[in-house]
Amino acid sequence: MKTEILYGYHPVYEALSAGRRRVYEIYRVKEKKAGRYEQILALARSRGVYHKTMATADFQALVGPVVHQAVAARVSPYPLTAMTDILPKAQDRNEKLFLLMLDNIVDPQNLGALIRTALCAGIDGVILPKDNCAGPTPAVSRASAGALEHIRLCRVTNLVQTIKFCKDRGLWVIGLLKDAEQSLYAGDLTGSIAMVLGGEQKGIRPLVRKNCDFLFSIPQQGPVDSLNASAAGAVGMYEAWRQRTEDG
Amino acid sequence: MKTEILYGYHPVYEALSAGRRRVYEIYRVKEKKAGRYEQILALARSRGVYHKTMATADFQALVGPVVHQAVAARVSPYPLTAMTDILPKAQDRNEKLFLLMLDNIVDPQNLGALIRTALCAGIDGVILPKDNCAGPTPAVSRASAGALEHIRLCRVTNLVQTIKFCKDRGLWVIGLLKDAEQSLYAGDLTGSIAMVLGGEQKGIRPLVRKNCDFLFSIPQQGPVDSLNASAAGAVGMYEAWRQRTEDG
Repeated sequence: MKTEILYGYHPVYEALSAGRRRVYEIYRVKEKKAGRYEQILALARSRGVYHKTMATADFQALVGPVVHQAVAARVSPYPLTAMTDILPKAQDRNEKLFLLMLDNIVDPQNLGALIRTALCAGIDGVILPKDNCAGPTPAVSRASAGALEHIRLCRVTNLVQTIKFCKDRGLWVIGLLKDAEQSLYAGDLTGSIAMVLGGEQKGIRPLVRKNCDFLFSIPQQGPVDSLNASAAGAVGMYEAWRQRTEDG
Repeated sequence: MKTEILYGYHPVYEALSAGRRRVYEIYRVKEKKAGRYEQILALARSRGVYHKTMATADFQALVGPVVHQAVAARVSPYPLTAMTDILPKAQDRNEKLFLLMLDNIVDPQNLGALIRTALCAGIDGVILPKDNCAGPTPAVSRASAGALEHIRLCRVTNLVQTIKFCKDRGLWVIGLLKDAEQSLYAGDLTGSIAMVLGGEQKGIRPLVRKNCDFLFSIPQQGPVDSLNASAAGAVGMYEAWRQRTEDG
């Protein structure tokens, strides 16, 4: 059976807390005092998960060359959500959906930061293409401070098809683009929406862009190129949150 | 004379472009094709700055163990701005000031990201305490994609004194705090303001917090602890931007 090694305090804690992955075993470095790991160990005990203490060298060999905070876990693969599980359910409940679609986000740090913000902003689902984007790896779980363990995330083969699928189900697809003429703040983000965000280097691919219903820019001043992807995402998601709450 | 080594494409380009630091010499790795470095070299030529090509090993020894993008520059120290240069000038012009004050932001990546967003959001000045915060180092210039080279940045010994100085000059001091009762979106950010942001681990220090006129929180959902500092900063600065533009 395929497993992966999650590392770092938050990923391990949140994986246990979310209960979506099977957690086979917790590992921690023998030389370290328990300290805040007591919370993890208590949660692990309540879930019937054993933990093993290891020498630093063995632990480092297990997790690889990463900043691991002396705790790790062997877990089942990341629990992806299907598009059909994200869309109809919310529609049945007559809710207004708010999805985040990412294109060309190749940096795991940026992906993790966006997922963390998405969870805080109450996003119903994050959609990642299988190509052109980082995947939901342990590094991303770490960069998301464990938010990846809770968020509903769907990986799709063809983002343009998924956009069409969303449009057919009544969502407005809104691309954030630095050169777009209309400001985000002039846009209406109160309906069922999918917000599309591109990576720093390549942005949103042209065909994806073409299939958006609206393109909005975040106003920017100053001489430097543009907001980074995770800052742009935070601004976009929270402006939507603001509009949706005021109108709700 | 004290100099520092800036590294990476954007820091070197923006230092040349901003013209605030003296640039003594540009270095690049001999084996690399010029490519986009042509832009740097052209700008350097127009400023009368020489460049030197170096073997990879020599270059690496010069810049240290960092991701350097094969280009670096020896420059004069970071050009700090004095508080007295930030405050009266804008007041003379009868403008509404928008300052960012940072406390306990120890991670250079977070500091760089915040400075980049601050420049995009048109912040008039960033205030950093000398203790409890990362400084304007080459690593921060890199993390800010060179925005550090343009922003007006002031380092202060005592943030509480600086807050009092700002209040005396008519600024409202607004702390962003995750546990604050009032939402950012219910706050008035349209006047002359200094927005105070704390780091991820320790947040805003109690005495700094106590001296704020208002404390606002960014609404958050979900089980994970909180927005990271650079996402919270992006949301806070752009909400202020929105309010100030709509009212302007």
